[in-house]
Amino acid sequence: MKASRFFIGTLKEAPADAEIVSHKLMVRAGMIRRVAGGIYNYLPIGLRSIRKVEQIVREEMNRAGAIELLMPSVQPAELWQESGRWEQYGPELLRFKDRKQSDFVMGPTHEEVITDIARNQIKSYRQMPVNFYQVQTKFRDEIRPRFGVMRGREFIMKDAYSFDKDVDGLKVSYQKMYDAYTRIFTRLGLQFRAVAADNGSIGGSGSHEFHVIAETGEDDIAYCPTSDFAANVEAADALPLIAQRGAATEALTKTATPSAPKCEQVAELLGIPLERTIKSIVLATDHGEGAEPTIWLLLLRGDHDLNEIKASKLEGLGNFRFATEAEIVEWFGTPPGYLGPIGTKKPVKVIADSTVANMSDFVVGANEVDFHTTGVNWGRDLPEPVVADIRNVKKGDPSPDGKGVLDICRGIEVGHVFQLGTKYSEAMSATFLGENGKPQPMQMGCYGIGVTRILGAAIEQNFDDKGIIWPESIAPFQVVVCPMGLDRSELVREHAGRVYDELLKAGIDVILDDRGERPGVMFADWELIGVPHRLVIGERGLKEGKIEYQGRRDAEATLLPADEAAQVVAQKVRAALAR
Amino acid sequence: MKASRFFIGTLKEAPADAEIVSHKLMVRAGMIRRVAGGIYNYLPIGLRSIRKVEQIVREEMNRAGAIELLMPSVQPAELWQESGRWEQYGPELLRFKDRKQSDFVMGPTHEEVITDIARNQIKSYRQMPVNFYQVQTKFRDEIRPRFGVMRGREFIMKDAYSFDKDVDGLKVSYQKMYDAYTRIFTRLGLQFRAVAADNGSIGGSGSHEFHVIAETGEDDIAYCPTSDFAANVEAADALPLIAQRGAATEALTKTATPSAPKCEQVAELLGIPLERTIKSIVLATDHGEGAEPTIWLLLLRGDHDLNEIKASKLEGLGNFRFATEAEIVEWFGTPPGYLGPIGTKKPVKVIADSTVANMSDFVVGANEVDFHTTGVNWGRDLPEPVVADIRNVKKGDPSPDGKGVLDICRGIEVGHVFQLGTKYSEAMSATFLGENGKPQPMQMGCYGIGVTRILGAAIEQNFDDKGIIWPESIAPFQVVVCPMGLDRSELVREHAGRVYDELLKAGIDVILDDRGERPGVMFADWELIGVPHRLVIGERGLKEGKIEYQGRRDAEATLLPADEAAQVVAQKVRAALAR
Repeated sequence: MKASRFFIGTLKEAPADAEIVSHKLMVRAGMIRRVAGGIYNYLPIGLRSIRKVEQIVREEMNRAGAIELLMPSVQPAELWQESGRWEQYGPELLRFKDRKQSDFVMGPTHEEVITDIARNQIKSYRQMPVNFYQVQTKFRDEIRPRFGVMRGREFIMKDAYSFDKDVDGLKVSYQKMYDAYTRIFTRLGLQFRAVAADNGSIGGSGSHEFHVIAETGEDDIAYCPTSDFAANVEAADALPLIAQRGAATEALTKTATPSAPKCEQVAELLGIPLERTIKSIVLATDHGEGAEPTIWLLLLRGDHDLNEIKASKLEGLGNFRFATEAEIVEWFGTPPGYLGPIGTKKPVKVIADSTVANMSDFVVGANEVDFHTTGVNWGRDLPEPVVADIRNVKKGDPSPDGKGVLDICRGIEVGHVFQLGTKYSEAMSATFLGENGKPQPMQMGCYGIGVTRILGAAIEQNFDDKGIIWPESIAPFQVVVCPMGLDRSELVREHAGRVYDELLKAGIDVILDDRGERPGVMFADWELIGVPHRLVIGERGLKEGKIEYQGRRDAEATLLPADEAAQVVAQKVRAALAR
Repeated sequence: MKASRFFIGTLKEAPADAEIVSHKLMVRAGMIRRVAGGIYNYLPIGLRSIRKVEQIVREEMNRAGAIELLMPSVQPAELWQESGRWEQYGPELLRFKDRKQSDFVMGPTHEEVITDIARNQIKSYRQMPVNFYQVQTKFRDEIRPRFGVMRGREFIMKDAYSFDKDVDGLKVSYQKMYDAYTRIFTRLGLQFRAVAADNGSIGGSGSHEFHVIAETGEDDIAYCPTSDFAANVEAADALPLIAQRGAATEALTKTATPSAPKCEQVAELLGIPLERTIKSIVLATDHGEGAEPTIWLLLLRGDHDLNEIKASKLEGLGNFRFATEAEIVEWFGTPPGYLGPIGTKKPVKVIADSTVANMSDFVVGANEVDFHTTGVNWGRDLPEPVVADIRNVKKGDPSPDGKGVLDICRGIEVGHVFQLGTKYSEAMSATFLGENGKPQPMQMGCYGIGVTRILGAAIEQNFDDKGIIWPESIAPFQVVVCPMGLDRSELVREHAGRVYDELLKAGIDVILDDRGERPGVMFADWELIGVPHRLVIGERGLKEGKIEYQGRRDAEATLLPADEAAQVVAQKVRAALAR
């Protein structure tokens, strides 16, 4: 590509609404332009990188035996009513009426449409396994679209859906996708981690997220540096930190703890470790209008945090909410701050975290303002509690696989694989005739990759103060050739053309900057755009038989023999792609 | 591709709602499946052909110097309000509100969005010419979606928009696109014709449509077999068929013509040629509530038809409507059937077609039921009329270029190139600094190709009673290898694999039907799907060193030497693509 025949729209300043670096850099580099909140134009440079991501995704999906098709953006409401999601989905599902007043949605995902295809096309177990995928534009009406392509409303996704005759088949299909995703993110040149995930509202059993590791990530990931274990903190099992409960050694004592509603304050006031204190969290579950709610007291060690997803999976807590202050006063006889399990005004259901259950001589609120109770022991002062894992793991916790201790990093979710099971096939009657001749629901999996989001995530992981640093595989161009004084020097013009042609012939995605801009402008543009390799061709160097090379991450330029420069750079690109 | 790893969803029966052959065959061949009215899934076989069309379009757009980008489906209402089309567009523009109650549209086209990009990105004449294009999913809420992909609601289009500093530049950009379209439809292997077109509501000046020639086409195209002239009948100039008016020879006579309201009946009754009669068409234009309308009488030769588009371009007729029966009675003193320009009850504005203007001794209605007036002559019996070209051309008319006579064929519009001029740039203030340092509106062109529609048009032009007959360039597969008794014969298995591998290596898009179906099923499937070349590999033939070849249009199969079959077929494909 010659820059004079291309469109480069770099900007000096980032827009005011850009909060994170990838958003700022994508706008400044001329990759995207805002059309409305969360809706973007992909300018030519941005589209080049998108197409490269799509190409890698397609190659690996095809290699894994998935078959590409294309479903529509606009979907009839009937299908969503059949699956039940017409009711379940919130306002991020964009609903509208067509000119005949029929209800439609803009597809945020395609489980319903693909299940409709499958139930019409797949009649026999002999037609499975089959895995259909598409690369398609989706719409999710986010309440607060932001971060550029990271949380847009209109975005490009690759979504795939597998159909199997049984659970064993589903597990095989799932593993194939897991492996394909691993290859995809490896080929994209990104540091990533596959982590066990909570299934969320999409339903089913068994799922992994693929996260690009970046400090600015929205998700906390627990991983074990000495083993394969990795899970979203939302989903990571927390082991009890105390193997066996110690014997009671202290007497139960009501102790004044003035102005110390928080565990940290109590620990400091009493001169004890935070790990001796217990945090009380009050939840409520409702039983219909007029009926009194059930009040639950969840107990966590002072240094631990509640994991709401784990709590919501406990029996009776499926639809919990936090208790109101009025309810707390009614059940505990005191406002929040000094709550505890002993002597509540009305009965509450107590659940102790698995670490709390093995504590002894601990401290809880006394259900009286400015007082705590110390020397508390299970069995002696309180009945044995219901025990459950209800906390988030922390750095330093033992890894659930028993192979080390956990660390926490931040990640950006760019892929997700799910075992859906029969959630949709049962709701929508997608059955096939099994080997036994009887109709059975298909076992489904679904597998998503956020194509446009990957660009943002790649930048969050790879940038410096000059701009983006693209991996070779998804850079809009792999090499830029910058001639100095193109209009003045025949020698430069001739060499630049030759080097450009040689790189093209070597199959390298090269751009020749023949715009006639000053060196400072050229260099700033291509550093901002993040082209990984740069060749600078100047008359002075050429007279000494040299061309200047600089890798985007290199601190200094190096000189290459002019006749070999193209081949040396082509080799660098190939080596980077092979990594 | 091996059929066992692919998805083939052929059907014996076409759906009840399929009216035309391409719709029936696309569903039966497993290319598309209906999701809702005018909204389709593109199944794997269909998507393969779509991608091939897209690829050819992209290659030729790039070759013509156009730059690809991607704009969103969902567009904010503000842009459409700026251009004025928020008001002008009818209900086929799908409008909706997002969760914040802001107005949006699903883009049926992207003039507004690209003009917004241009006004933000293009500041100087030095940045032009530039031509941006995209391949993108559009939505048009057709009142009566039908004919499968031919008139869908959600469809894929390539749309391009050029920006120039002046009209001369626009003409160059336009010609480049005209040439690119010619290459595209040639490479697609379709019989087509570029025809001069009316600009329609999109505005601007100068446009051509590209039509695939097919008997089932919706458009009438006038063309001259002995010259380059071709135009949509809507837009083709009609020359006067009488060079000079003859002298009056008959006296004006009121003649009884009982029960003969139509020209054909009058001609028969009076024993005169139809070409001596004149047809009266009454139009009305309104002047606001309460004001009396203007009534217009348009006169056409008895064998000619009104061209409403030409009429609407005459001064004062911009917003014409057909007059009501009540208005006709009020102005002419008689109901429709015997109307004429002589002795109307109230004054009407008379416009004569350019052929009518040179007629003499002609017959018109007498403004009295069951009576006509014969021997009518301009100047003597009537004032000289206002003259205009207001009729459709007919087969046999002289070609407007003076190089022969016209013929009429039917076509399916698959592409359209427009000179928009400054319609959008003026409405949306898309200006640049000219060489004179002053702001000027950009000169725009727009250029569309209906990607999914091309599939339907290609089928309407190429099918038989067995199914589709694809051109090589857009066939889902170019060659199918059908082994007979794959499970029984090692010889067949080995040869089929070898031929398949050889074709793959030769760069041919080949499918090996390894499903183990009976020959009849295999042949019917691939004839329906329309694969242009078939090799049948059977044990009997192999023992004689032969493989059976049949082109999709061939009446009979021929035998090829087994060792050369792959190369012979590869050569046939290449030859077809090179045509």
